[in-house]
Amino acid sequence: MSRTSSSAAGTGPIRLGPRSRAALRPTEAPAVTGGFWYGRRLTNAQAGIPQGPRLLESAGNLHNLRLVAGKAQGAFRGDYPFQDTDVYKWLEAASWQLAQDTVAGRDTTALTAEVDRVITLVAEAQQEDGYLNTWFQSGRGAGRYSDLRWGHELYNAGHLIQAAIAHHRATGRTELLDVACGFADHIGTVFGPPGSGRPIDGFDAHPEVETALAELYRETGDQRHLDLAGYFVDRHGHGLHGHEAYCQDRVPLREADTVEGHAVRQLYLLAAVADLAIETGEESLAAASARLWHAMATTKTHLTGGVGAHHDKEDFGDPYELPTERAYCETCAAIASVQFGWRMALLTGQARYSDLVERTLFNGFLAGMSLDGESWLYVNPLQVRDGYVDGGGDQSSRRTRWFRCACCPPNVMRLLASMEHYLTSTDGRGLQIHQYASGVFHGEAGGAPVDVSVDTEYPWRGRIAVTVERTPGTSWTLSLRIPQWCTEYTVGGVAADAHVDVEDGWLRIHRSWSAGEELLLDLELAPRLVSADPRVDAVRGCVAIERGPLVYCLEQADHPGGGLDDVVIEAGGALTAKERPDLLGGVVTVVGTGYRRSLPEPGWWPYVPAGSPQAPGTPLELVAVPYFAWANRTLGSMRVWLPTS
Amino acid sequence: MSRTSSSAAGTGPIRLGPRSRAALRPTEAPAVTGGFWYGRRLTNAQAGIPQGPRLLESAGNLHNLRLVAGKAQGAFRGDYPFQDTDVYKWLEAASWQLAQDTVAGRDTTALTAEVDRVITLVAEAQQEDGYLNTWFQSGRGAGRYSDLRWGHELYNAGHLIQAAIAHHRATGRTELLDVACGFADHIGTVFGPPGSGRPIDGFDAHPEVETALAELYRETGDQRHLDLAGYFVDRHGHGLHGHEAYCQDRVPLREADTVEGHAVRQLYLLAAVADLAIETGEESLAAASARLWHAMATTKTHLTGGVGAHHDKEDFGDPYELPTERAYCETCAAIASVQFGWRMALLTGQARYSDLVERTLFNGFLAGMSLDGESWLYVNPLQVRDGYVDGGGDQSSRRTRWFRCACCPPNVMRLLASMEHYLTSTDGRGLQIHQYASGVFHGEAGGAPVDVSVDTEYPWRGRIAVTVERTPGTSWTLSLRIPQWCTEYTVGGVAADAHVDVEDGWLRIHRSWSAGEELLLDLELAPRLVSADPRVDAVRGCVAIERGPLVYCLEQADHPGGGLDDVVIEAGGALTAKERPDLLGGVVTVVGTGYRRSLPEPGWWPYVPAGSPQAPGTPLELVAVPYFAWANRTLGSMRVWLPTS
Repeated sequence: MSRTSSSAAGTGPIRLGPRSRAALRPTEAPAVTGGFWYGRRLTNAQAGIPQGPRLLESAGNLHNLRLVAGKAQGAFRGDYPFQDTDVYKWLEAASWQLAQDTVAGRDTTALTAEVDRVITLVAEAQQEDGYLNTWFQSGRGAGRYSDLRWGHELYNAGHLIQAAIAHHRATGRTELLDVACGFADHIGTVFGPPGSGRPIDGFDAHPEVETALAELYRETGDQRHLDLAGYFVDRHGHGLHGHEAYCQDRVPLREADTVEGHAVRQLYLLAAVADLAIETGEESLAAASARLWHAMATTKTHLTGGVGAHHDKEDFGDPYELPTERAYCETCAAIASVQFGWRMALLTGQARYSDLVERTLFNGFLAGMSLDGESWLYVNPLQVRDGYVDGGGDQSSRRTRWFRCACCPPNVMRLLASMEHYLTSTDGRGLQIHQYASGVFHGEAGGAPVDVSVDTEYPWRGRIAVTVERTPGTSWTLSLRIPQWCTEYTVGGVAADAHVDVEDGWLRIHRSWSAGEELLLDLELAPRLVSADPRVDAVRGCVAIERGPLVYCLEQADHPGGGLDDVVIEAGGALTAKERPDLLGGVVTVVGTGYRRSLPEPGWWPYVPAGSPQAPGTPLELVAVPYFAWANRTLGSMRVWLPTS
Repeated sequence: MSRTSSSAAGTGPIRLGPRSRAALRPTEAPAVTGGFWYGRRLTNAQAGIPQGPRLLESAGNLHNLRLVAGKAQGAFRGDYPFQDTDVYKWLEAASWQLAQDTVAGRDTTALTAEVDRVITLVAEAQQEDGYLNTWFQSGRGAGRYSDLRWGHELYNAGHLIQAAIAHHRATGRTELLDVACGFADHIGTVFGPPGSGRPIDGFDAHPEVETALAELYRETGDQRHLDLAGYFVDRHGHGLHGHEAYCQDRVPLREADTVEGHAVRQLYLLAAVADLAIETGEESLAAASARLWHAMATTKTHLTGGVGAHHDKEDFGDPYELPTERAYCETCAAIASVQFGWRMALLTGQARYSDLVERTLFNGFLAGMSLDGESWLYVNPLQVRDGYVDGGGDQSSRRTRWFRCACCPPNVMRLLASMEHYLTSTDGRGLQIHQYASGVFHGEAGGAPVDVSVDTEYPWRGRIAVTVERTPGTSWTLSLRIPQWCTEYTVGGVAADAHVDVEDGWLRIHRSWSAGEELLLDLELAPRLVSADPRVDAVRGCVAIERGPLVYCLEQADHPGGGLDDVVIEAGGALTAKERPDLLGGVVTVVGTGYRRSLPEPGWWPYVPAGSPQAPGTPLELVAVPYFAWANRTLGSMRVWLPTS
């Protein structure tokens, strides 16, 4: 097998070719050079990713690879047939990190050595025919492909493929890509529709291989991978897994009218649907992905962008069923939502998709990692009660160093390490800025490169300075997303000859630019209160505090002398933003007014005649902190939604 | 082994002896002869119980007994090590039914034959040393008592013991009691504290044997059974099951300050704690049971009396975490709550315990069985949304004919068949009526029998006529519980020489009664609205309709032309009770006024600036039906809690 290295360092998870039917294309090798996300990525680079090999060793994942490679004795370690994916996701994260480090001119020797060591192990574990899964190879699971409902073999393959693509794009090297292509080729000889001559007509109940295969097609140009992805996607919903929603098998994807079942499975599958719509141009795929995104956003997404309403089965709930203390909002589901949303943004060019990506990144996703990058949340609730009993386990509302099912931490690592990929795009006629971060970003206009630099302290401050760094002589369009949450903004530095247009969330400025010109977008960041659609029963009579793209919450640490279950916000009171460099690594808090309820003399029954009088409360200053920063201090209660009476 | 038949037909699940330290004692052989519960019990007798053997045959439970008795070939059938308990609970139900039928002079030939056939099978399945569990005996599980966390062997034994006691009390026969005592004796040789010479220091993670052993002590007078129950109770909370709340092992029972973990396990355990408090007089046990009941009632009980907030782990949530659509409220947990509550009523004499028993019986418990007695709910939610997707399985919000884990249906059968036991008591100085049903009830005053008959159409009408049927020459006290929900009532027929006292929920009338005297209690049944403690976040801004002891709900069937997610009640509007003999087997509905919200033009994001105006709605007549009768018509949405705006 031989492959040419066509990749440039820094290319991200999605690379669209000239035949892709997308409105937008990701841009090559952007760089985040400062500001908010730079800081979070630095933590990921310095604390998150480096701990990977040690944790993968202690949890047994590397042992399992050595075991099936004949280099270790003993039994399979861990409880799940997808233990290998933790390795692959870490490899993907480390590869994107290598790409960044290369661009930035940093020394990559140590990380390269770690990555090489693990890749060698993966290659040694692979069987002759390309198959690779330590659970089944070690005999812990019985019989290849005998349990497509729970075996996760293709799910494993998907993460292997994504890691291999990352490694190839980051380094130009093919060792891991060879392993991945070997496994993908093998899968292609095994799975196919009746009459195809391939022995198994089926699909993995945990989607992931589909979007990975679509990207492998993009990476290699091998049409078979895309066809296989399409086959898998359309086998869903025909009862091969008993029509179970959990397995994404209740209805055919193209007929579905809402997101349902296991949230991560649903969204990885939808990422593939968007991929297929982009690569095949099939209208029914584009329509299904847009319809299901809309159903998710309008009826099944928490304020934080988190999704998944049930701990049990980790699934979407019914429309508007969005509990607070039992919000599941798995960190992986937030990541999957970002991956799906970004593909929809590329497919359609519509700003709303990046609106939700922004909300998810800054809130439901980012809360998943502690400020020090060393502990994690698997679920991301919107409330922790005063009397919260930690049942332990992965689904605890307390941070944990690692999980028995450790899908989330390396998933966070890979998204943070590739985040620059989700910030900007080009449509061939200019450059679109989807997310605001300081850095250098590239686009294309009429075949010529355009570069801009961005300088901003977003999300703490609303000022965003965009400087044109490279521009061809022709005119082109610079597009800036006006966030959905933003109702007031100013634009400075627009030349008189510019054509300015605001449509559907995009501020578009078309003109002939000169290098060095600066455009100033200033988004009003006054703290605000939001309420929910009245069908969201869980938060009736409550408001939440937001500022810019950040959702805020109260934590018990800032409200000594009592818990949070009895706190009420004065909805008409002033809200004041306060810069607090001393707090939680430096945040802006929002201070409001409210009270603690005085509770009536307790009887034994908590239900009373409607209209019973309430005792007056005790005034209380409310100090709200960004949701992403919660659970980094002493254990205590937390709430996003605040009662107004 | 030989036992004397000391039991009278009709004696119920609890029989207290002269040394019991309870404020009250259940009375012997009461009879429900008409009215509401008579009808539900008739359905149980004619539809519920008779289908048992057929269902136990088709689900494999009887096959498993034959299998280990050497009378069938093949493998264990079913998925759980507690399949035998379905048989035992059915035997208990059938036994109580035999007792009733005997009292009523009905022909018991057919049911006796069925019961005898099953008892013979159980006896044949038992091993020489007394051990009995088909999961382990068949080799489906590996090694007796090797898995106390999940093996359920003592849980099985508990239900066997309860069935045996019921059969003995109902028929005076000892075949099943011999089997149960054999198993109990065996357990007593195996389990004990370190130094006891018994090989295992441990307890079953699913309590049940404890309360059963306490009753076996009452039945046989054998102190060893009570001691073993006490040993098991006090082994909880010391880490034998990793301090897991699910296993009732987080903290020692006497130190616990709230109910937690798996709701059924917690409440079966607490029933045993109350039993032990009654039999040993230990203050710390009485205090713990009262404290934990209080914590449950004040912070963890749904309006329907249902308990258990989480589908995942079937457990209690945090205080005031009482979701509506994900209310777990397992039917078995309602039954366990009734069993615990009744023991507390007996222990303390306080009316509040029977208040909650009443609420649970009429609502959270009774909804578990369909009106025709042939289909069941495992979970009893307080809301089903318009877009509800039935994920299937035992935890569906739709009725099912039987369950993979079929714990609930035979549990309903045994409670309905023994319900007369929970209605009245004696304190030796008269008779207490806890629950209102038409029938004949017995008490004792100064060693002499007192009998009363009750005639009532409760809960549809508030008039309760109590006639003294038998009375000694001395004066005694007739005590009537004034329900906690009742704020207005009248009492007629009180003679001038009576001493009338109302204390803590009891109306007590002390006098020298004459046979034939009638006392009339009339409870005001006007429909009312209730709201929840403000800490119950799930139902903020909502009210619920109640009438008498019944909780009401809206069903989609009564509100054509739309769903229920957008329905709003006018909190100040009139509520009118309407007798509807045509509806749901004959109910009283409550009609109110409200509207359907007109929804704003849908965007893609359901969160809006607080204070955004709402469009006016469309007036709607609301027709509420009793919660117990829901889900007996076409599938659709349902809700108990109604938004007021």
